[in-house]
Amino acid sequence: MFSQTMYELGTKKSTIRTIFEYGRKRAAEVGEDNIYDYSLGNPNVPAPAYIKQAIFDILNEEEPCAVHGYTIAPGLVSVREKLADSVNRRFQTNFAAKNFFITGGAAGAITITFKALSEAGDEFITFAPFFPEYKCFVEAAGAKLVVVPPQPADFQIDFTEFEKRISAETKAVIVNSPNNPSGAVYSEKTIKKLTDIMKKKEKEYGHPIFLISDEPYREIAYDNIKVPYLPHYYADTIVCYSYSKSFSLPGERIGYIIVPDEAASFEKIYGAIAGAARVLTHVNAPSLFQRVIARCCDMPSDISTYRQNGTLLYNGLIAAGFKCIKPQGAFYLFPEALEADDYAFCKKAQKFDLLLVPGTDFGCPGHFRASYCIKTSTIEKSLPVFKKLAESYGIGKRS
Amino acid sequence: MFSQTMYELGTKKSTIRTIFEYGRKRAAEVGEDNIYDYSLGNPNVPAPAYIKQAIFDILNEEEPCAVHGYTIAPGLVSVREKLADSVNRRFQTNFAAKNFFITGGAAGAITITFKALSEAGDEFITFAPFFPEYKCFVEAAGAKLVVVPPQPADFQIDFTEFEKRISAETKAVIVNSPNNPSGAVYSEKTIKKLTDIMKKKEKEYGHPIFLISDEPYREIAYDNIKVPYLPHYYADTIVCYSYSKSFSLPGERIGYIIVPDEAASFEKIYGAIAGAARVLTHVNAPSLFQRVIARCCDMPSDISTYRQNGTLLYNGLIAAGFKCIKPQGAFYLFPEALEADDYAFCKKAQKFDLLLVPGTDFGCPGHFRASYCIKTSTIEKSLPVFKKLAESYGIGKRS
Repeated sequence: MFSQTMYELGTKKSTIRTIFEYGRKRAAEVGEDNIYDYSLGNPNVPAPAYIKQAIFDILNEEEPCAVHGYTIAPGLVSVREKLADSVNRRFQTNFAAKNFFITGGAAGAITITFKALSEAGDEFITFAPFFPEYKCFVEAAGAKLVVVPPQPADFQIDFTEFEKRISAETKAVIVNSPNNPSGAVYSEKTIKKLTDIMKKKEKEYGHPIFLISDEPYREIAYDNIKVPYLPHYYADTIVCYSYSKSFSLPGERIGYIIVPDEAASFEKIYGAIAGAARVLTHVNAPSLFQRVIARCCDMPSDISTYRQNGTLLYNGLIAAGFKCIKPQGAFYLFPEALEADDYAFCKKAQKFDLLLVPGTDFGCPGHFRASYCIKTSTIEKSLPVFKKLAESYGIGKRS
Repeated sequence: MFSQTMYELGTKKSTIRTIFEYGRKRAAEVGEDNIYDYSLGNPNVPAPAYIKQAIFDILNEEEPCAVHGYTIAPGLVSVREKLADSVNRRFQTNFAAKNFFITGGAAGAITITFKALSEAGDEFITFAPFFPEYKCFVEAAGAKLVVVPPQPADFQIDFTEFEKRISAETKAVIVNSPNNPSGAVYSEKTIKKLTDIMKKKEKEYGHPIFLISDEPYREIAYDNIKVPYLPHYYADTIVCYSYSKSFSLPGERIGYIIVPDEAASFEKIYGAIAGAARVLTHVNAPSLFQRVIARCCDMPSDISTYRQNGTLLYNGLIAAGFKCIKPQGAFYLFPEALEADDYAFCKKAQKFDLLLVPGTDFGCPGHFRASYCIKTSTIEKSLPVFKKLAESYGIGKRS
C-alpha cells in the first residue's frame, strides 16, 4: 500500500531528535533556563544585517517577475559568475559560472553529487565521526557507505584504516572539515597525505576516485587556523558548500556544488549532476536567495559568538575533568564520555538536565557531542552542572 | 565513472527547452518584438503586492533567528494550521496541521508522494495530454507510468481506455486539472465517474488506489467554472498544491501535500511521505516563504491577465481557422495542428517566428501547446501571423 522503507525512514526518530523533543518537554516542566540543551546544530546567531538589507534592495530594485521566477536549473548565470569571482578571489582559483551548480544547501549538494556519481556496486568512504545522514543519502543513491574508524587522539585521519578500506569499488571519499561532530579541522598535512594516497589509488585502479568536500562549516574556524581548499590539492575534487551556517540561513536551503574543469570528465559529471538534480526535483534553488547570496558572497561571517562559546565550554569541561580536543572549527565539542557506554553516559547527563548526543550516533562510541550554538548564558550556567556530573563519576572531586 | 542514466537525464534537452533556446537566439537576430514565443509555462504576472509586503513585515516583526532557521521537516505547525484553516474555509473540509506537509512546490510534492507510495511492480496511471516530467518522476520512484490516451473532443477522460488500463498493479491515478497542456478543467461529472470506477476497483482488488490531485493551476479557472475539490469525492485522495502559479512564485519552490484523515492508513502514508522527503533531501520547505504563504493564503490570485490573454488568443485562433476547446483554466491552449505531424507543423510555425510546442511531447499527437502567459501585446501582434500560417495550409483564405 506504501513504501515500507520510506515509512521507516520517515518515522524512526533519530537520537538527536528524541533528545531534543525530551528537552522541549522538560523545559515546559522545569523552565527554559534550567535545561541545558546541547543537542541541535541549529545556528543561534541571527543572519547578518546585510542579508535583510539585500532582500529589501532586491525587492525594491529588481524586476519583480524575475525575482520570484523560475531560474535555469543550475542557477542564474549572473549569480554563478559572482560566486565564481568571489571564490576565485579568496582561493586563487579559476572557476567560472559553468563550474557552479546552485543547490538547496549542502544536503541538496551532497545528495545530488552522490546520485550523479553512483553506479551499481559503488562504495563511498567517509571518516568517523561523521554526519549520520550520509548513510541514508548514499544508500538512497544505490551505493554503500564505508566508514573508516576514528582517530580520537586528534580526530585527523587514521590512514592505516583508510588504506584497508579504499578499493577498486571506491567511487568517492567524503570529507567534512571543519567537522561535525568533532570540531576538528583537517590539517594541510592530513589533506596532503589523503590526496597522495588517492592519487596513487587512482593510478592503480585506472579510474578516478572523487574527493567530495562537504564544507558547510568552512567559514567557522578559529585562531586563524588554515582550512585547506581541497581543489588545490586534488584534481578530482567536488566542493559542496552551504550558506546555512556562514550566513545563518539553514531554513532557506541555499548552497552550491563546484565541479572544477580539472575534474575527470568535467562535462559528463556536470551533466550527471543536472540529471540527478532533475530526478530529485531540485527544479531550481530558491530564486530570491540566489540573488541574496550573489549580493552578499563577499561579506564576512560573524563567528565571534561561536568562538566565545567554544572557548567557554572547552575551558569549563577541561576544568571539570573532561578530555577533549580544543575547538578548531564548526560549533561542536566532542569530548570523551565518562564511561565506556556513551548512551548510558548521556542518559545519566540527562538526569542533570544536560542534553548531550552519544558519539555512537556519529560512528564514534565513547564520546559525546555538545553543540555550543546556544546562548552563552546557558553555557555559563551549565558549567557547574558538568562539574557535578563529572563528580558523580568520581572525577575532579576535592579529596 | 558516473551514472550514465543521470547524465542522459541531465543533458538530453526537452523539446520545450530547445524551442525556447532557439527563440532566445532568434530574438537576438530579429528583435524581441518580432518573435512570438509561446513555449514556456512561466508566469508573466508578477507576484502580488501583498507578497512583498508580507516579506517586509516578516523581516521587520518576526524573530530573525527563527525566520531563516531550520523548521521541522513537514513545515512549521503554525503555518500548517493557517493553511488548514484557509482550505477548510474555502472547501468545507476538516483538515488540521497534521494533514499538511509543506514542500518545494508541486514538483516536490508529487515526487515525494510517488516515492512514498511506490513498491516494486507498481503502476501510476495518468491521462494524456500530461506534464511530461511525470514519467521521469514516476520512474525515479521505481514505478511505471501508464498513460490513458486523450479524448480530444473535450479533453475530459476516455473511460473505456481508462478501464482497460487500471489493474491490480495500479498504485495511484494522477490527475491535473485545470490541465497543462489542454487548458481543460475536469467537470464534476468526469470526477464522479472517475472516482466511481476507482471505488469499484479498490473493492475488486482489495487494496487502496490513491488519487493524486496535482493542482498548481487550481486558482486559474475562468467564467466561474467549478473545479471540483477531490477529497470530497474520494477518500484516498492526496492533494499536491503549489503557489508557483497562484502567487507567481515558481522560483521560490513552495507548495504542500495534503493527506486527509480519511485516506487509507493515513498515519502510515504521512510517515512514508516524511521518509521520502528525507531521502530526497527536502530538509524543509524554504522557511521565509513558509511564513509568507501563512500570511497570504487567504488572498485572491489575480488571473485577469491570463483571462484576457486566453480569450484574445482563442478568438484569434478560431478566426484564423484553428480548432480548439475554449480556455477553461491554466494558461495554455491546445489546438489541433494543421497537419497530422505536429512536429512538422511546429517546425513550419517556427518559420513564421511562432514558437509552439508539439502535442506529442504531452502524449497527444496532432496538437500543439501555446502558453499564453506572455505579453498581451505579443499575442495581439501574433494573430495576423497565425492567420498567415493557417493560410499557408489553405485554411481561411478568401476565395
